[in-house]
Amino acid sequence: MNTNSSNMMALAPKTPNKRETVCIFGTGDFGRALGHKMIQCGYPVVYGSRSTQITNLIPKDAEVLSHAEAAQKAAIIIIAIQRQHYNFLIPLAEILHGKVVVDISNNLKLNQYPESNAEYLARLLPGARVVKAFNTVSAWALQSGALDASRQVFVCGDDMEAKQMVMDIVRALGLTPLDQGSLLAAQEIENYPLQLFPMWKFPVFLSLGLTAFFFFYCLALDIVYTYIYENRNFSFFIALTIPNRICPVVALILLGLVYLPGVLAAIIQLYRGTKYRRFPDWLDKWMLCRKQLGLLALAFASLHAVFTLVSPMRAFVKWRTSKAIVSQALNNKTEPLDTTNAWLSDSYLALGIIGFFFFVLVGITSLPSVSNSVNWREFRFVQSKLGYLTLILCTAHTLVYGGKWFLSPSAYKWYLPNIYMLSLVVPCAVLVVKFVLIFPCVDKPLTQIRQGWERNPKYSE
Amino acid sequence: MNTNSSNMMALAPKTPNKRETVCIFGTGDFGRALGHKMIQCGYPVVYGSRSTQITNLIPKDAEVLSHAEAAQKAAIIIIAIQRQHYNFLIPLAEILHGKVVVDISNNLKLNQYPESNAEYLARLLPGARVVKAFNTVSAWALQSGALDASRQVFVCGDDMEAKQMVMDIVRALGLTPLDQGSLLAAQEIENYPLQLFPMWKFPVFLSLGLTAFFFFYCLALDIVYTYIYENRNFSFFIALTIPNRICPVVALILLGLVYLPGVLAAIIQLYRGTKYRRFPDWLDKWMLCRKQLGLLALAFASLHAVFTLVSPMRAFVKWRTSKAIVSQALNNKTEPLDTTNAWLSDSYLALGIIGFFFFVLVGITSLPSVSNSVNWREFRFVQSKLGYLTLILCTAHTLVYGGKWFLSPSAYKWYLPNIYMLSLVVPCAVLVVKFVLIFPCVDKPLTQIRQGWERNPKYSE
Amino acid sequence: MNTNSSNMMALAPKTPNKRETVCIFGTGDFGRALGHKMIQCGYPVVYGSRSTQITNLIPKDAEVLSHAEAAQKAAIIIIAIQRQHYNFLIPLAEILHGKVVVDISNNLKLNQYPESNAEYLARLLPGARVVKAFNTVSAWALQSGALDASRQVFVCGDDMEAKQMVMDIVRALGLTPLDQGSLLAAQEIENYPLQLFPMWKFPVFLSLGLTAFFFFYCLALDIVYTYIYENRNFSFFIALTIPNRICPVVALILLGLVYLPGVLAAIIQLYRGTKYRRFPDWLDKWMLCRKQLGLLALAFASLHAVFTLVSPMRAFVKWRTSKAIVSQALNNKTEPLDTTNAWLSDSYLALGIIGFFFFVLVGITSLPSVSNSVNWREFRFVQSKLGYLTLILCTAHTLVYGGKWFLSPSAYKWYLPNIYMLSLVVPCAVLVVKFVLIFPCVDKPLTQIRQGWERNPKYSE
Repeated sequence: MNTNSSNMMALAPKTPNKRETVCIFGTGDFGRALGHKMIQCGYPVVYGSRSTQITNLIPKDAEVLSHAEAAQKAAIIIIAIQRQHYNFLIPLAEILHGKVVVDISNNLKLNQYPESNAEYLARLLPGARVVKAFNTVSAWALQSGALDASRQVFVCGDDMEAKQMVMDIVRALGLTPLDQGSLLAAQEIENYPLQLFPMWKFPVFLSLGLTAFFFFYCLALDIVYTYIYENRNFSFFIALTIPNRICPVVALILLGLVYLPGVLAAIIQLYRGTKYRRFPDWLDKWMLCRKQLGLLALAFASLHAVFTLVSPMRAFVKWRTSKAIVSQALNNKTEPLDTTNAWLSDSYLALGIIGFFFFVLVGITSLPSVSNSVNWREFRFVQSKLGYLTLILCTAHTLVYGGKWFLSPSAYKWYLPNIYMLSLVVPCAVLVVKFVLIFPCVDKPLTQIRQGWERNPKYSE
Repeated sequence: MNTNSSNMMALAPKTPNKRETVCIFGTGDFGRALGHKMIQCGYPVVYGSRSTQITNLIPKDAEVLSHAEAAQKAAIIIIAIQRQHYNFLIPLAEILHGKVVVDISNNLKLNQYPESNAEYLARLLPGARVVKAFNTVSAWALQSGALDASRQVFVCGDDMEAKQMVMDIVRALGLTPLDQGSLLAAQEIENYPLQLFPMWKFPVFLSLGLTAFFFFYCLALDIVYTYIYENRNFSFFIALTIPNRICPVVALILLGLVYLPGVLAAIIQLYRGTKYRRFPDWLDKWMLCRKQLGLLALAFASLHAVFTLVSPMRAFVKWRTSKAIVSQALNNKTEPLDTTNAWLSDSYLALGIIGFFFFVLVGITSLPSVSNSVNWREFRFVQSKLGYLTLILCTAHTLVYGGKWFLSPSAYKWYLPNIYMLSLVVPCAVLVVKFVLIFPCVDKPLTQIRQGWERNPKYSE
Repeated sequence: MNTNSSNMMALAPKTPNKRETVCIFGTGDFGRALGHKMIQCGYPVVYGSRSTQITNLIPKDAEVLSHAEAAQKAAIIIIAIQRQHYNFLIPLAEILHGKVVVDISNNLKLNQYPESNAEYLARLLPGARVVKAFNTVSAWALQSGALDASRQVFVCGDDMEAKQMVMDIVRALGLTPLDQGSLLAAQEIENYPLQLFPMWKFPVFLSLGLTAFFFFYCLALDIVYTYIYENRNFSFFIALTIPNRICPVVALILLGLVYLPGVLAAIIQLYRGTKYRRFPDWLDKWMLCRKQLGLLALAFASLHAVFTLVSPMRAFVKWRTSKAIVSQALNNKTEPLDTTNAWLSDSYLALGIIGFFFFVLVGITSLPSVSNSVNWREFRFVQSKLGYLTLILCTAHTLVYGGKWFLSPSAYKWYLPNIYMLSLVVPCAVLVVKFVLIFPCVDKPLTQIRQGWERNPKYSE
């Protein structure tokens, strides 16, 4: 044991760069950005390039060599080249044998090739230890240091040690590596940066469609009708009154649509007598975007809340209030307090507030960090129990607010119902069916089915 | 080095299933759901079952064999069987020797057995490499793909390589493995899915109790008293006025209770002259649920804020306002602006708003992802400094709002104080004691004690 | 294969402490707290100390030995000693050879030594496997169990196996280990607990400075001017009116400052014709604190929203409203509805609400857990597209609200513009320049430059 000698060596001044050399194939934008960042973090970088003519684009401290020479200098080779040029690597297969080869490529569209770039590379270089990494980071973010969104670097590969080496580099660059397992995960990793809120598309279009429909519906009934039959110009309703009529309606419908697929699924399971047959495709997709529908409903509900709260500040409301008071004063009489009205007004406000409160609570538990810190039982409690409570409270809020209109003929302009009434169809239907489903005679077989029982079990031979 | 031949093999068309075969013991609900999912993700699955009669419940592409045959086909065996049947595995010990055996079982109640299921399994199969996993995932979530809450799979085990293999499967199924260390963690992992907000129970019951108490207190003083002595029916106060009286009171008391254990602990440490003796059990428990108390206080404060903001929309408030204005008009006089009143009204509103603002700020830093991204010093700064600032502002808001009532006899109906006064007891007490504690003559010994100094150190022999 | 015998041993009663012994050097506060916690979690703990006299401060079940004896009893030695005393370890180098030595030290200020404590320790003990850990945890939090903020323990070290052993202990203590890579990361880990919101300092001071400036500006124009020239005492404006004038102004300016560095950077890149030269230092720093500026802007905007919503509850506003209505009644006339005014009032309220709504949306995506779950493309979409939409809506809100004042001479008291006008300078400038930048003739070269193209590429020979 020569502790002494090693001791002396260790006490010698630290060499400035203890990091291992990294080789980058390709001097394109991303290759340069990555090289810059690595040099900043103390890695010696050597570029492999067809022409070794050095432009001032390449980081100053980096060496530029031919591909073969560069690869020999490092244990890790980063391939910053597009997939269609990968076959030039085939002659280098022997040099790259046993080396860690990092595929950082991205495609232009989802599932562009049947095989992921990294797996294709691994097939071209069977002796190399291919690791997929860095594709989710943008060149711009690397250079500017503005890495708010993309600190996460998904890493996958079949060789544990190679993956570990790449993850150490990722950490050294101030990023967070996330091990995604074997190279089979590469396809998904390559698709990831191309997505733009895929789960949100349908819910957003649906709610925009509903908003547009109700906007024109309100425009016709509230402005055009009033203008034609009462000759009054309420065009300024477009700015705030109509939005505040649309928001609660869309919110309530979307909230109903969150719980509708659940009751549909229960009915289908009861009818089929088994849970082991797939739901129709549309129902599956619908169930997967319930969270997004719910959050959009919350957004519309929030807008409704704020639109309502500003109403005392509106010129129109102030004018209406003062007109009413002045006319009382001029008629020399004081109206007595209408207790029924006070009850109704306070009740629908309180129901709305408490409903909105629970809605926000359910929304908060949808935050990734919160839903990760609760278990399945707690999550179901909040999303199902509190969610239904929210639906009940919001439906009650709407019913108490405008129940009186159902019997008033003035609410049916052009024989069309008020949008307020349209908003109640979905939530009331859901609540009625759900109410039936919790009856013991219905709930018991449903629970059995969900625990795996079958009404007509079929044994294959 | 036969690079060529391996190269040719690698360039051959990819085999559809590169994944290793997985064996599942047990064809119950969870075993089938897991098998379905694994087949979907490209794993060949073989079931081990007592009867090899295939029902249509079992995934189509899965094989069903006897336990011994199935186990021999795979390196990983998932035990989807209840703990009480584990002893049937003893005869298979030799076949399972060296294999990765995954325990996925759950219990029906917390700490049901002195020894965790996974450790019991490891004891039964001493040669097997037992890994605990998958117990936090629900069968329903696996099948439906709705994995919002339960993407996290806790994994523990004594064999690193076995754990790694299981974690790769977890990732392949689209879930997030969380390494919890050795098999000793199994007990905690098995308890996890059985919990239902254990830390929230006491704070929730406390605040519900306070709410109920103050509700009946208000009911008596505001409605019954008014009805008896003034013969006026204010029963509609139940809907909104009384809730908006209760919410701020409960919020302030709960906020005081968040900071009370801290000052009690300081007093106990000063009295004892050491920090090395345990606090009484109730104080320990109280300190551990301060976050929950604080978040509940924030919830009540939010409700108070919204209840207050809607007040101009209430029929009762509109009626009261218009009555006051009409009587001014009828008496032909305009009241001048009372500047003192304007000062008081604006001050308590501003204090309340800023107090609530800091309260929300402290609440946001309680979100797991935010508190994880700050260090201990920053967390203490927000939770302690900003927390006390919130308490001071909210107490001042309450004092300015209703200071005038302390001397008004009409506030003492039936010789009982207004609930507004009751709400001030706890926060004022905390603030006074805290004020004493930051005096240098008290703060200095306390700081010394907290750094480990003792007034009467005792050396054992 | 002697399965039987091992089977019998395994079925023997479990030994209470299966955990390996841990040695702690140093009986200071943190060493004792860590020892306490470890004993609680089932680790046998042995202290290494100069004097083996046992005080009652040391956990009861722990042994106290000399350093050499204690180190020989354990595979893991935790060094709970200050850096300046590390050299006493040099004689123990041989005993510590091959052992896992855990450095848990912290410094008193950032970058106190050129070399991190852990690297210094590794240099002193070249044969030991040094791991950095536990420095981010507070002794108080360990003892009290109140580990909300500091569950995360950063771990780094050059020896994978040693790191794994330490991470297992971390997990056993109920904490979350975060592997930070090699020992080079130690400096950063040691700096981490000393920081107090370093990125927030400049934005907070800037916004406090702006707030103070506008406060005195408003004080002069709204209170002093009114008092001198109109002899009216509006001193109570300090409580709420002036804050609600300052908040939107500061919010809008800060929001403008979030997007100003982006357009400045674009201009610099267009002027230089390359992206490969560093931006001036101040611009770099400015770009890195845009998130903080934006969140502060959101805080001021939220305060503005709540200040505005409470206005109908203010004594002053109530007095003003009733005065206006009473004077109408006394003059026996009812003012007709001013439709233009209704349009303006509703428009600026609606613009403000929708602007605030998008602002909150952008703010929510800044939460770490949300921004981690979106990819780079989605993050840019929200932060850039929705961010600019917010800026446009908020600027429009301000313009519609007070556009009429630009031409009113009464808005220029003492020839100074209203602060409302000052607030528009930055956002309007940003929007105008951004509008020019999206013209194709400007956008095309800018995009090329950002993809790596250069106007005057220089090749170094």
